[in-house]
Formats: sequence, structure tokens, C-alpha cells
Amino acid sequence: MDEATAFAPGHVTAFFAPYPDRDPVRSGSRGAGIALSDGVEVTVTPAAAGEPDRPDDAGLASLELDGAAAEMEPVSRVLAELNVAAEVEVDSDVPVGAGFGVSGAAALGTALAANAAFDLDRSENDLVRVAHAAEAAAGTGLGDVVGQFRGGLPVRLEPGAPGYGRMDGVPARPRIEYVSFGELSTERVLGGDLDPVREAGEAALTRLMRAPDELELFAAGREFAGEAGLLVPEVAEAVEAVEAEGGLASMAMLGRTVYALGTGLSDAGYDTEACPVHPTGATLRTEG
Amino acid sequence: MDEATAFAPGHVTAFFAPYPDRDPVRSGSRGAGIALSDGVEVTVTPAAAGEPDRPDDAGLASLELDGAAAEMEPVSRVLAELNVAAEVEVDSDVPVGAGFGVSGAAALGTALAANAAFDLDRSENDLVRVAHAAEAAAGTGLGDVVGQFRGGLPVRLEPGAPGYGRMDGVPARPRIEYVSFGELSTERVLGGDLDPVREAGEAALTRLMRAPDELELFAAGREFAGEAGLLVPEVAEAVEAVEAEGGLASMAMLGRTVYALGTGLSDAGYDTEACPVHPTGATLRTEG
Repeated sequence: MDEATAFAPGHVTAFFAPYPDRDPVRSGSRGAGIALSDGVEVTVTPAAAGEPDRPDDAGLASLELDGAAAEMEPVSRVLAELNVAAEVEVDSDVPVGAGFGVSGAAALGTALAANAAFDLDRSENDLVRVAHAAEAAAGTGLGDVVGQFRGGLPVRLEPGAPGYGRMDGVPARPRIEYVSFGELSTERVLGGDLDPVREAGEAALTRLMRAPDELELFAAGREFAGEAGLLVPEVAEAVEAVEAEGGLASMAMLGRTVYALGTGLSDAGYDTEACPVHPTGATLRTEG
Repeated sequence: MDEATAFAPGHVTAFFAPYPDRDPVRSGSRGAGIALSDGVEVTVTPAAAGEPDRPDDAGLASLELDGAAAEMEPVSRVLAELNVAAEVEVDSDVPVGAGFGVSGAAALGTALAANAAFDLDRSENDLVRVAHAAEAAAGTGLGDVVGQFRGGLPVRLEPGAPGYGRMDGVPARPRIEYVSFGELSTERVLGGDLDPVREAGEAALTRLMRAPDELELFAAGREFAGEAGLLVPEVAEAVEAVEAEGGLASMAMLGRTVYALGTGLSDAGYDTEACPVHPTGATLRTEG
């Protein structure tokens, strides 16, 4: 047993139609998003058994997020489900709580790295299933994990973990810019009536799959944000500024974050982060 | 319309159980393999219409393979199915006809690049389906394309293109060494009775999925090669030399090629190529 490291891309949801289910592997959402090459690196180290300050009960991990002690329920749930005790170090390129799916990435990275560190002999589908179910059960996300495993511009055709849901993808790999204005409470936004969100999400998915390219992904996301009534003021202002320059942008669901195609945000004068779409998806760090 | 480039990893099949079908999207194999970061780069350039020496009928592509004019039926079939005329340039890191799935990689790369070059607005699943069907219809392969799209150590749980087959993966990314002794006629090998191959392939898949890690993948592949009676003399000799040093190796299905885990072949004194497993899978070249 040794430490192992995995990477999972950040994931911005462009639009979604939520389908929560009592069974967390069936819980999920239909929708589409963007996997970013900016993402989350997770290192899992088996916890030393027997040391009094390091209980080796499964699921009781110490966790560091960007160098500071933190709690992430999906990560604890993954370790408990895999029946291992570990120290987990999460380093994120993208801001936490701002709509980049950091909790999903941390759960997925933990599953992949723990499998390697403990020689658990799980398959990839199994590990994605464990991470997806941990996110769904924790209430922190419904679609990031499966999108982060697929990479690129992932489309959730049917909700749920591998074996339940069904994925496709938009075969384009554009440059993405993003600016984040801080955290947004998912609970507050999604506490109300989900029907209008679901209806707008379904309409956006139908629209995208008629012509699955990156322009349509942005346009469908933008339409969704307006119709679902989810735009927050600073983000709406930035989206309009990008559009005034002829660019395409929308709001990360759900975060106080705007993302744009190509140079949309810098053209509009914003001081922006930029990265390519992550070509493929989460993976154990390669050797050799 | 502009040129576009895509990359598809080389794919070594460790073991397989063939299930040919009259319908090429349902045709396929169960089995497992290794996607290599050594692979195939494909550039698609829309053919100039109207020039007398460049007919723009769909599917009539000029093709260069490693700088020389060549024919590749799966590539022509992909272009015909997509209803476009293009020049295709295929550059391969791995030897052709030696069990690395170059024809599948060329078909898949052509589909991804042609979609981008011609703005075809197909989804990823659609493009993989077109490439898989082209390979199956041409008789050049049954499982490379879906493995090359997934990347890593891909497992074909059920045969066929996306929407028909079902994939999983072994979550490990080891270093691979390989030595090729030249071409092998797939037709000659598979012209006979397929039942023993299918039986050995099914046994190997059952074995692997009980403990899906890289050691088991190599062991299952080695057992399959022996039981299916497919080992050729030079390859058998190299496999035994690796095993004599305590390493793991087997024969690429189907090619006069031996592949080994880690430093297996160099430890046995072979002058070998080496590369990491391709972490994820085929993709359009990223921008930005």
C-alpha cells in the first residue's frame, strides 16, 4: 500500500434537468457541461493504523483542501463505501463553491486514487458509481462526477451512475475563459420549485442534440439561465458585456461564475482565467 | 471549412471473444486491451471541389499514410458515411498491420477530424458509431475503435458501437513496452473455427472482471493467447524470455507483436519501444 494521485477536471454545468432519486446511483440529472483542464488533484495516503490520533476506521479520513484542514462529505462517503481509512489531500486549480464541481472532482479523484493506493481491484465503472452515489447522497451534486469522468464537453443523456445513466459528448475542444465572483448557495437556489428548471433543462438538451457543437452548447446554456431564472446580477452583467462584444457566455450552474467561449471575457475587458477544455477526463496519474 | 486534426491511441487487444453481426453497429467483440500514448494522428482537409484531379464525390479521399499514398477502407467508408470529400493524412507512431489497431485509429481520427473540418454537428457517440461500423464493415477490426475512444485499459463488456455495446475499464495507467516482428494476416488466423477463440476470450473476461487490475489483465491475456492457440513462434519466444525474468507479457491480438508490463522486455534484453498507457482516449486536438 502506497499513496496514489488522480486528477479530475473542473466541470461547469451549462444546463440541467434534475432527477433526484432515493437511490443515489439512480439519482442524477440530464444536461450538458464543460470539463476544464483546470481541475482538482487528489492524493490518497493509507492512514497509519494504530496511532492514537489517526483512527483507522473506514471513512475517517483527515482531509486537506488547498493546504488547510477541511471537511468534504462526498470524500468521506467514498472512503466509507470503499471500506478504507486514508489521508486525503485535495488541491484545486478552480475556486470552491463557485460552480466548478470541486466536490465531485474530489470524490472521483479519491475513488480512483484510493483504488490504486489500496489495490482494491474495482473497475472504472464501479469507482465512478461510488463517487457519483457519494455526491448524490451528500446532496452536493447530481451530474458533475459522470461529466468529469468522461471529459470534453460531456452530455448527460440519461441521469445516473454508469450502468444507470447514459452519456454522449460534443466533439469540440475550445478554449474557455471564466471569472468567478464568489460562492452561491445551491440549497437556496434549488430549494424552490424544480419544475421550471427541469422544463428549461429539457428544452436546452433537445436543442443541443439537434446540432451538438460548441456554439449550440453556449446558446442552450444561455437560454436555460434566462428561462430557469437562475442568473445572479454580477454574472448577468458579465454575460451581457461579453454578448455586447459579439461573444458567447453564460453562468456556471450553480455558482457565481461566468464562463465564455474563446476570448469572450477578455474581449469584454475582464481579468479572466483561461484554459482549454480537458480533452478527455479524470484519470489516475500515469507512470512511465 | 478548414483542416482539423485528431489523435487516437494505438490499441493492443489482450484477449477477445468475437461476435460478428450482419449489422456493423452491432458487430463487435467482448474483451480487453491497452490504449497506448503512441498512436495515430489524423488530419482531414476538405477536398477542393471542381478541380479535375480532385473529384469531390463523398468518400473519395486521397490518403497519405506516413507520407506515402495508401488505401484504408475504413477511412473511405467513414468519409462516405459522413457524405464528405476530403484529403486525409495519417501519421502513425506504431507499426501498421502489427496488432496496434492503426486502421481503427485512422477511422476514429478521421471521423472526429472530419466532423470538425466540415462542421457536421455530429455527437461523439455518433462519430464513434460511424468509425466502428466502418471498421466492422471493412473486416479490419471488431473492438479497437470503442477501446481507442475510451482510452486507458478499456474493457468491452458487451460488443458493438455506442448505444449497442457496453464499456468498462481497468483503472491503472502503467508503462508498457512493446516489440514488433512484423505483420500478421488477421484473415489467416481468424479464417478457421472461432469457437475456441470465443470460449477462451469469455473465460479471460470473467477472470479479469473478478479482479480488474493490470496484473490480471496481463495474466488473462497470456492465458488466452495459449488457450486460443494464437501465439506465433517469435512472439512466444519473447514472452517466455520476459517470464523467465519474472515479468508479464503477451501477444497483441492480432499481430506479430509482444507487449510487456513495465520494463519486462528491456529486462529480458530486448531493444524495445516504451510508452505510458494513454490516460483517456481519442480526441480532437485542443485549441488554446
